[in-house]
Amino acid sequence: MSQENSIPLRKDAPIGVFDSGMGGLTVAREIMRQIPNEKIIYFGDTARLPYGSKSQETVTRFSRQIVRFLRTFQVKTIVVACNTASAYALDELEQESDIPIIGVVKPGAKTAAEVTRNGRVGVIATEATIGSQIYTKYIQELNKDVAIYGKACPLFVPLVEEGLWEDPVTDEIAKRYLTELIDIDIDALILGCTHYPLIRSTLGRIMGEKVTLVNPAYETARELREMLQDKGLLNDVPPKLGENQYQFYVSDGADKFKHFANSIIKYGVLSAKIINIEQY
Amino acid sequence: MSQENSIPLRKDAPIGVFDSGMGGLTVAREIMRQIPNEKIIYFGDTARLPYGSKSQETVTRFSRQIVRFLRTFQVKTIVVACNTASAYALDELEQESDIPIIGVVKPGAKTAAEVTRNGRVGVIATEATIGSQIYTKYIQELNKDVAIYGKACPLFVPLVEEGLWEDPVTDEIAKRYLTELIDIDIDALILGCTHYPLIRSTLGRIMGEKVTLVNPAYETARELREMLQDKGLLNDVPPKLGENQYQFYVSDGADKFKHFANSIIKYGVLSAKIINIEQY
Repeated sequence: MSQENSIPLRKDAPIGVFDSGMGGLTVAREIMRQIPNEKIIYFGDTARLPYGSKSQETVTRFSRQIVRFLRTFQVKTIVVACNTASAYALDELEQESDIPIIGVVKPGAKTAAEVTRNGRVGVIATEATIGSQIYTKYIQELNKDVAIYGKACPLFVPLVEEGLWEDPVTDEIAKRYLTELIDIDIDALILGCTHYPLIRSTLGRIMGEKVTLVNPAYETARELREMLQDKGLLNDVPPKLGENQYQFYVSDGADKFKHFANSIIKYGVLSAKIINIEQY
Repeated sequence: MSQENSIPLRKDAPIGVFDSGMGGLTVAREIMRQIPNEKIIYFGDTARLPYGSKSQETVTRFSRQIVRFLRTFQVKTIVVACNTASAYALDELEQESDIPIIGVVKPGAKTAAEVTRNGRVGVIATEATIGSQIYTKYIQELNKDVAIYGKACPLFVPLVEEGLWEDPVTDEIAKRYLTELIDIDIDALILGCTHYPLIRSTLGRIMGEKVTLVNPAYETARELREMLQDKGLLNDVPPKLGENQYQFYVSDGADKFKHFANSIIKYGVLSAKIINIEQY
């Protein structure tokens, strides 16, 4: 991270949060809960979602455009609230940036390494995240004795977006995806895609009580809070009455986004604006 | 369509075919079967798929870029092998182009209007295609007495792409989507998304023998053949030995595309090249 020639960051500057679409709202929601004074600029790349089946080069190019867009708001930090973008693009984004950038993978990996007792951790995620082996890399940096078992679950995102959060079909698909992880006797399961916390109760029921579900959204908000505190960047002033604390931007389908967002975030997503991300 | 200043089209020029991704291969397959002398340049916009949940403005912008790309091959005609792009962008693409452009919606609509006996036609498609009411518009232009019932089926594409072409889960989801169309007593069902012919047997089983399934991919290849014949553009020379008759381009994930394509097209998709479509 290069700090030369940079303007000092302001405590009251917003936090940029982005995802391929709507899943990152589970991360934004945790930030709202854990550090309620912060302003958030959220961007969902709904014109080009999903990222989870795309290549590293493409996801990195998309992520760079989004970082450029978010920086037009003078954000003090950026949260890559997408496992695929965190897996594929975080290193490059960090190297190119003079503000702190946080992904969702490291915080989830750290917690999983801490909570496992039998040293067997499962990861469910998109094809891209599983293929990148990023969770394996981070967990084994912390503890070489932990074995990580990855399973791509491509149908979970469409099932969540179809609203089948509690449904026999989601149960059936989840059983198929998770059987091999149950057979391997994992005792911690990382929900390695930001949509998955929304079917947390289905996943918990199938995995059983002995398996700890690790939600990177929660862990990321915790790490963000610590980082801001360490750097003296935590906003200590509550939002003013009438201030637009949370702003939402998308690359397509603002109404659909707003509808879905309001089912996740109880603070009220009043509006979402469309921008052409390819121009950044 | 403006014809001024245009170079005469050549019979042996290739046909451009595009889709948001892989579904359009069901259309390419029908063209290969019905007019086997033709060369095809296929483009699948795998970096930005799916189109079916995106807006008219976005889908039109993407489609224009693809037309510009395909025209670099001096194609003699372009087939919009995607229902969403046909619904949203065909009129503008036709107006802007001096070569014939064919979509998949009109040929499917025409056949449905012809085959229905009780005047009740169902359409299953993406949210975008259903929302556009494009099938309703075309069918009622042909026959005002036909009633059209649309049903968006957003899970069919991910189920097909996960390979669950014959599966109890696909059966269950199909039953839920189709029940209201069965209750309405339709006697023709348009498969209004290019992925759906791949689950044709499941759909046929659920709808029963009295319902005619209309496959726009088949009808489009037939209309293409007629159009080329009328204009004297049908290629009467078989491909030379060793000639690269079918070329495939994608905006991402060439290997994954190739794998899927080979499960649809029996002619062998030897390779797919990646291009950056945002540059066009």
